Amino acid sequence: MKDILMNENSASKTVTAAMLAIGDELLSGRTRDKNIGHLASALTLQGIDLKEVRIVSDEQEDIVAAVNALRSRYDYVFTSGGIGPTHDDITADAIAVAFGVSIDHDSRAMKMLSEHYASREIEFTTARQRMARIPDTADLIPNTVSIAPGFILENVHVMAGVPSVFQAMLEAVLPTLEGGSKMLSASIDCSYGEGTIGDGLGEIQKQHPNTSIGSYPKFDGKTYSTQIVIRSRAQDDIDRAVVDVRKMLEALNK
Amino acid sequence: MKDILMNENSASKTVTAAMLAIGDELLSGRTRDKNIGHLASALTLQGIDLKEVRIVSDEQEDIVAAVNALRSRYDYVFTSGGIGPTHDDITADAIAVAFGVSIDHDSRAMKMLSEHYASREIEFTTARQRMARIPDTADLIPNTVSIAPGFILENVHVMAGVPSVFQAMLEAVLPTLEGGSKMLSASIDCSYGEGTIGDGLGEIQKQHPNTSIGSYPKFDGKTYSTQIVIRSRAQDDIDRAVVDVRKMLEALNK
Repeated sequence: MKDILMNENSASKTVTAAMLAIGDELLSGRTRDKNIGHLASALTLQGIDLKEVRIVSDEQEDIVAAVNALRSRYDYVFTSGGIGPTHDDITADAIAVAFGVSIDHDSRAMKMLSEHYASREIEFTTARQRMARIPDTADLIPNTVSIAPGFILENVHVMAGVPSVFQAMLEAVLPTLEGGSKMLSASIDCSYGEGTIGDGLGEIQKQHPNTSIGSYPKFDGKTYSTQIVIRSRAQDDIDRAVVDVRKMLEALNK
Repeated sequence: MKDILMNENSASKTVTAAMLAIGDELLSGRTRDKNIGHLASALTLQGIDLKEVRIVSDEQEDIVAAVNALRSRYDYVFTSGGIGPTHDDITADAIAVAFGVSIDHDSRAMKMLSEHYASREIEFTTARQRMARIPDTADLIPNTVSIAPGFILENVHVMAGVPSVFQAMLEAVLPTLEGGSKMLSASIDCSYGEGTIGDGLGEIQKQHPNTSIGSYPKFDGKTYSTQIVIRSRAQDDIDRAVVDVRKMLEALNK
């Protein structure tokens, strides 16, 4: 894990993250992912920059390669999927391989799950016990929806793929994360297409190097409109760029 | 590009693909991607296995690294986003860097776009001309929605991020792709949670190694149900596994 406190004394602190969504069903089109957008919004609110997302299939080699590539590069990694009770849920074992640690039924998770199923008079099958397999030294992530926990190993947060469970786990994890300086933004909608505002906007970007100006075209089947978004960690920088964008749009209106 | 015809005479042919979605807005949560699921479904229908998806921001270094990692590993790569007229549309330039080729205003694209704008009495601004920047030796992908073309460089297909345009470009590209043996599937819904069927399903998977059996939990806020999906390139293999899955479910019903 990079030392994210290193530049704490400077004006702004950048904390980065990556997501790894795991599951054949996401790549076959059977399931449309709902976790990426949720994580992206939650991290943005906390001042953490989601820098990269990968989706891979339920194959150990692919999961290991992706986790190792991402965990060395970003402050935090979040995974979704593959921690259920069936044979195709191989994420926990793959994470153990990626970290080179052993994995077995975790006593905390076994207790939690056996009590849960006992109270509901549901058999604690070998399959259900599979959900207690946790890599050595990992901390557990509570799951208020369906009990079976996620886990944290160093900077990697391993969470469920079912959106309601992913969201519950993320809610438990968010307060433990070191947030960065929040990225602020201002958004201006205009009825011009990008081709009309592009030259002016490029000039404004050059004049406001401390901001990141994005333009997002919308197309309703007939005409284009554009949302202009100005991002920075300093409100002053945003305000100054907004003035220039408004000037440009007013000039086009004439 | 790997020689995807190599095993044409064998019983089944595997063709692989990866997608690279490009755009800060996807990583900030501002925009929820709609292209990954669309591409996944379209490729699956054509017998092409989408093996990996990455989402990166509008930063040249990240785009170059991702494109080069993916294009050497998979038969086809599809990108979305970053080919519009504004300063933050840097995909075409990044692709040129990735391939080590030059990039300039392409005469075919310039003609196409200048005629389009002239016919609508819209100024062909420097920004709009930016959409004619195409890496050397690339083929164009027609865009029936908004004219500005995508392009193909070796096995990399560069397409727009606006979903309606992405879909139109993909429609133009699909007939040019070498499809593989189609992945077939059978789907069985059951009212049991994964914990109940997990042990039996794992056994069935072992007995049917030529199939890939997935189980996809659904949670309605109170109880779990499961969709069991059996995939193979041979219908016979699927049919035999389906028999065993139905037997298992019937035994649970007793």
